[in-house]
Amino acid sequence: MAGSEFELIDRFFRRASRRDDVVLGIGDDAAVLRVPPQRELVVALDTLNEGVHFLPQTAPSDVGHKALAVNLSDLAAMGAEPAWLTLSLSIPRYDEQWLAAFADGLFSLADRYGMALVGGDTTRGPLSVSVQVQGFVEPGSVLRRSGAKPGEAVMVSGSLGDAALALRQLKSGAAADKALLARLNRPEPRVELGRRLAALASAAIDVSDGLLADLGHVLQASGCGARLQLDSLPRSASFAACSESDAWDLQLAGGDDYELCFTVEPSRIAKVEAAAAGLGVAVTRIGEIEAAPGIRCVTANGALYEPSLRGWDHFG
Amino acid sequence: MAGSEFELIDRFFRRASRRDDVVLGIGDDAAVLRVPPQRELVVALDTLNEGVHFLPQTAPSDVGHKALAVNLSDLAAMGAEPAWLTLSLSIPRYDEQWLAAFADGLFSLADRYGMALVGGDTTRGPLSVSVQVQGFVEPGSVLRRSGAKPGEAVMVSGSLGDAALALRQLKSGAAADKALLARLNRPEPRVELGRRLAALASAAIDVSDGLLADLGHVLQASGCGARLQLDSLPRSASFAACSESDAWDLQLAGGDDYELCFTVEPSRIAKVEAAAAGLGVAVTRIGEIEAAPGIRCVTANGALYEPSLRGWDHFG
Repeated sequence: MAGSEFELIDRFFRRASRRDDVVLGIGDDAAVLRVPPQRELVVALDTLNEGVHFLPQTAPSDVGHKALAVNLSDLAAMGAEPAWLTLSLSIPRYDEQWLAAFADGLFSLADRYGMALVGGDTTRGPLSVSVQVQGFVEPGSVLRRSGAKPGEAVMVSGSLGDAALALRQLKSGAAADKALLARLNRPEPRVELGRRLAALASAAIDVSDGLLADLGHVLQASGCGARLQLDSLPRSASFAACSESDAWDLQLAGGDDYELCFTVEPSRIAKVEAAAAGLGVAVTRIGEIEAAPGIRCVTANGALYEPSLRGWDHFG
Repeated sequence: MAGSEFELIDRFFRRASRRDDVVLGIGDDAAVLRVPPQRELVVALDTLNEGVHFLPQTAPSDVGHKALAVNLSDLAAMGAEPAWLTLSLSIPRYDEQWLAAFADGLFSLADRYGMALVGGDTTRGPLSVSVQVQGFVEPGSVLRRSGAKPGEAVMVSGSLGDAALALRQLKSGAAADKALLARLNRPEPRVELGRRLAALASAAIDVSDGLLADLGHVLQASGCGARLQLDSLPRSASFAACSESDAWDLQLAGGDDYELCFTVEPSRIAKVEAAAAGLGVAVTRIGEIEAAPGIRCVTANGALYEPSLRGWDHFG
């Protein structure tokens, strides 16, 4: 049963908001919102295209979850508190089941953070989901990429490489490991950790294109380099069957991790570890910031390792 | 010559901002922005897909202009002052000439309103441009769809139907009328008029899906109906060759006009006309709000006219 664009929005995407900072939500030419006093606005957006950012067989609820999760991961990397989201959804046809499941995935995650969907555009076209999120930080407290200094520890949350390993399994047609698939399709944005890090870390980024690429952005913005201990890269049990270099490559350049990579003055590491433990999130020290530009990956015996992959780039 | 996603953003989309409310622009995980004290935030987004919202042969500078213009038209309909924009751009391949021209069209319009591009995402995929704009209103002064009351005048800015007529010419392969083409490809958002109307009009919407569809949203939100005088619909000289009913259909339901449709208490019409005249924008009284639901289109001799089109709907 086909419905109109407006029925579609009403049915799947318009929900009563419990946020009193939403003056006017979906249903006019634009939303009207109130930023709390003494807060700065943090805005991020990320687009997922079918066949590029997710496989065509991905469950619609996973697409809904991931489209918001990758954006929340950006807010996390800024140390921001999530508030609102907007959605631009292009779909090839009106498909009730797909839309209901997609909305369920999106709102389940939004509800966990008390976020309101305040606007959107639904168009006909190849499947593409563009989400924009807005959140708040106290003035001056935002976590930038540019704050890393030589001598600081490089740390990451969670484990690295799982999503890339899952994608390889899927593409090879092998039986998919459920835990790995969840890491690929339903990443958990490190929002609470990011907010704690705002007062503790010097620089942060979320790992979406791969550790080398994303840490590289921090180093470029900060004007320094880093040494990474490959043995320290946090790795899930699913890597047992991989060779050491294969695992490193996936962890260094696989991407789609949505973990936070951040730098911390050594005197603050214990506080970071305590905050993370309180949240039930693993954090691991994987290296240190050095003055010399570039990233040096070092094995347990001190040898330099040259990764065979460099990370995701749409136009590289 | 291919470049990386980051080079692409640097080269075509990162520009120094002169806005001091941009704390952090493009180049981190998110933008950080400051909403002025005593202002509410107004947020709108609209997506243009190639082959759906614009023809494949459309000049890239026109695509850049229009992607922002249709969003500014939404801000205009709210009476808001434009401030920032973000861009999600999906392109099938790295094409320097296309990108340079697209950016030129986008920034030429953004510069006219002193707007800053504060974030974006550039991905590989079918050509799709999603722009989100943010602006400000004084608390309580936003123009809603829901304020129309029986007895008020229905008015529109500019002229109606030009873009629909241009599209028909293009699709028929006929020689394209330049003035009409400009109306289709480079619509002029009525930003200044909208800001003046914030203190004068009772309800407003921008005409994007066609007058009947968009006025219908106002009427539904306001719980009333309207009577339109077909003779009064403002029409450019390009319609000389059209039959009366053909012209009416394009004007009532063609869409892509990006004019403002608004309702005004009769005692304020003269003030609206004076404000519009000061801006060099035509405004025309085309009918009046009535208590009975529905839209009644009336010819010069008082007969009811039933349009053969009802307006654009992606999923109707």
